[in-house]
Amino acid sequence: RAAGALAAAAVTAVALAVAAWRRARPVREVLFFPSRPCCIEALLAEAAEPGAPARPCPCPLPSGDTALSRLVRRLLSARRSLDLCLFSFSCPQLARAVHLLHRRGVRVRLVTDAQYMGLHGSQIGRLRHAGIQVRHDQHSGYMHHKFAIVDRRMLITGSLNWTTQAIQSNRENVLVVEDAEYVKAFQEEFERIWEEYNPANYRFF
Amino acid sequence: RAAGALAAAAVTAVALAVAAWRRARPVREVLFFPSRPCCIEALLAEAAEPGAPARPCPCPLPSGDTALSRLVRRLLSARRSLDLCLFSFSCPQLARAVHLLHRRGVRVRLVTDAQYMGLHGSQIGRLRHAGIQVRHDQHSGYMHHKFAIVDRRMLITGSLNWTTQAIQSNRENVLVVEDAEYVKAFQEEFERIWEEYNPANYRFF
Repeated sequence: RAAGALAAAAVTAVALAVAAWRRARPVREVLFFPSRPCCIEALLAEAAEPGAPARPCPCPLPSGDTALSRLVRRLLSARRSLDLCLFSFSCPQLARAVHLLHRRGVRVRLVTDAQYMGLHGSQIGRLRHAGIQVRHDQHSGYMHHKFAIVDRRMLITGSLNWTTQAIQSNRENVLVVEDAEYVKAFQEEFERIWEEYNPANYRFF
Repeated sequence: RAAGALAAAAVTAVALAVAAWRRARPVREVLFFPSRPCCIEALLAEAAEPGAPARPCPCPLPSGDTALSRLVRRLLSARRSLDLCLFSFSCPQLARAVHLLHRRGVRVRLVTDAQYMGLHGSQIGRLRHAGIQVRHDQHSGYMHHKFAIVDRRMLITGSLNWTTQAIQSNRENVLVVEDAEYVKAFQEEFERIWEEYNPANYRFF
């Protein structure tokens, strides 16, 4: 009986170690778009009120595992900070996720492109109105990055503009990487741009 | 004297091991744009005729180390294959590098976007004319990827369209990674698109 208990304990220890290793293993994910359309209401509801009973969404879309739902999940994992550097941001679903993080107390900073932020459908005004800090360029080249940094730990970057057209119709890629070296390089680029686009530095010609 | 020779041999062995490790270490590079303007004639000449005496270029641009020269170097390292999946390709310098690889016998395949390939300044027609295989989409969404795979070994991907405007004026990022997992995912995406855009599959409405 003692040997049996010992064996069971050993099996449990191995299982716990494997689970810990899986949790600790850095995220390395490649997402390709277009994404199948999907409902992300359940993801947003769970993030807004963890553990609350799920209410079924009346929309006809499936809530399965898609490139979009994976992207939203990664964003919603933010606990402290979300730094966004986005050429174009008009997708209402992603804007709701960002707004939710802001309401939850995550420090959101958003850098965007001056020419694109005012286009029809842009979510920038809405997010700014909600109290999120937004900065934009003031020169002729495009601020063409499309990356996000979650908790200064996870980099989300690729070809994807945050628009419904891109998500549903285009061939796009997004890398999600928890890699200190890449995160550091992009975080430094973000801070450079954030400072360069500080309104205190604007020159009025 | 024997001890001295032994020490020298040991130092040499360590130096060789370090050199081998550096060579074997997978590439992990992040390039940010805009790039300072630079002359890449020396890089192209060396790639066209390795070891040939360098002729000074009459252009006034410096030939220093820039994001553009690094990108060109990575491309020119191709020995067997170069798979390109590019939304927009109008930069003459990058087109010359690709053309040179094709002439050197590297198997170049190029996937691009139907709406953008015909725009003024596009290099697609020129490359096709040179004998490079080109395929494009035939539907409404954009083929918005901007990646290259060198020798099925190195992935070059980011926000950068291969245009002079993007290289010289925009805020852009490019990751260069020798990572079997990422390369595999992008190579599979490339093959999917290459097959989907096979002209034999075109439907004429």
